[in-house]
Amino acid sequence: MIEGVGLTPLKIINGQMGLVLHGIKSSDTGFMGFGEAYFSTVNKEAVKGWKCHTKMWLNIIVPVGSIRFVLYDDRIGSSTMGSLFNITLGPAVNYRRLTVPPGLWMAFQGKGDFNLLMNFASIPHDPEEAKQLPLDNSYIPAISWI
Amino acid sequence: MIEGVGLTPLKIINGQMGLVLHGIKSSDTGFMGFGEAYFSTVNKEAVKGWKCHTKMWLNIIVPVGSIRFVLYDDRIGSSTMGSLFNITLGPAVNYRRLTVPPGLWMAFQGKGDFNLLMNFASIPHDPEEAKQLPLDNSYIPAISWI
Repeated sequence: MIEGVGLTPLKIINGQMGLVLHGIKSSDTGFMGFGEAYFSTVNKEAVKGWKCHTKMWLNIIVPVGSIRFVLYDDRIGSSTMGSLFNITLGPAVNYRRLTVPPGLWMAFQGKGDFNLLMNFASIPHDPEEAKQLPLDNSYIPAISWI
Repeated sequence: MIEGVGLTPLKIINGQMGLVLHGIKSSDTGFMGFGEAYFSTVNKEAVKGWKCHTKMWLNIIVPVGSIRFVLYDDRIGSSTMGSLFNITLGPAVNYRRLTVPPGLWMAFQGKGDFNLLMNFASIPHDPEEAKQLPLDNSYIPAISWI
């Protein structure tokens, strides 16, 4: 696991009419304030990334489908500098909230037919605070996106 | 429209890999603080309700499928006391955020094959602050759930 990253198991409550899926509470570990909540869909096998937020804490929940996340730590002074971390999240496979501190690189890939994440972000969207790299770059260790 | 209810148009941004769907920002009209965010799915034609939150402000977004909401106002002193309000939300039909003040009754019905809402609630879940009535009751005017 990468230093500072959180993985919090979340409950799914079954009902006759449908489910209730927990997300995040203001009293939860990993809650770092609220700036914006938005959704992102990612097509099957498509990959979104790489992106590195320099100020935003992310809290990511996948209530529909299945999404593979890869994190890369290039933070100087981090005990896990140079590490990659892989996890696949979704209500059927592994329903957890992924807390990502600022400074980590992230990319993610759709694994199901329809895949939706919510990012509960500590600050509102600000393109100035995010760095981007193409998937194919010589900085982050090569990942197999099969 | 019922007094105090908000309906805010939200953006959907198309990309090659998938969509980004706006939700809520801390600077938005209708943001009344944050207590908890959770998801609810509702099966096709199934109805969840009635429920009346006495303290919670709801901010409801439907990023997947299509959900019909019915609100009923029994608030003494409200200019719309006795009114019903009907709206169907979803990314394909009508992508807006529904802001519901405390004191209104709400029920909702799945209209698509798969339907998911997020409730961005101003306070954490507390069963003590919510009143419930069965769908079939003699208090709320009869609704046709066809």
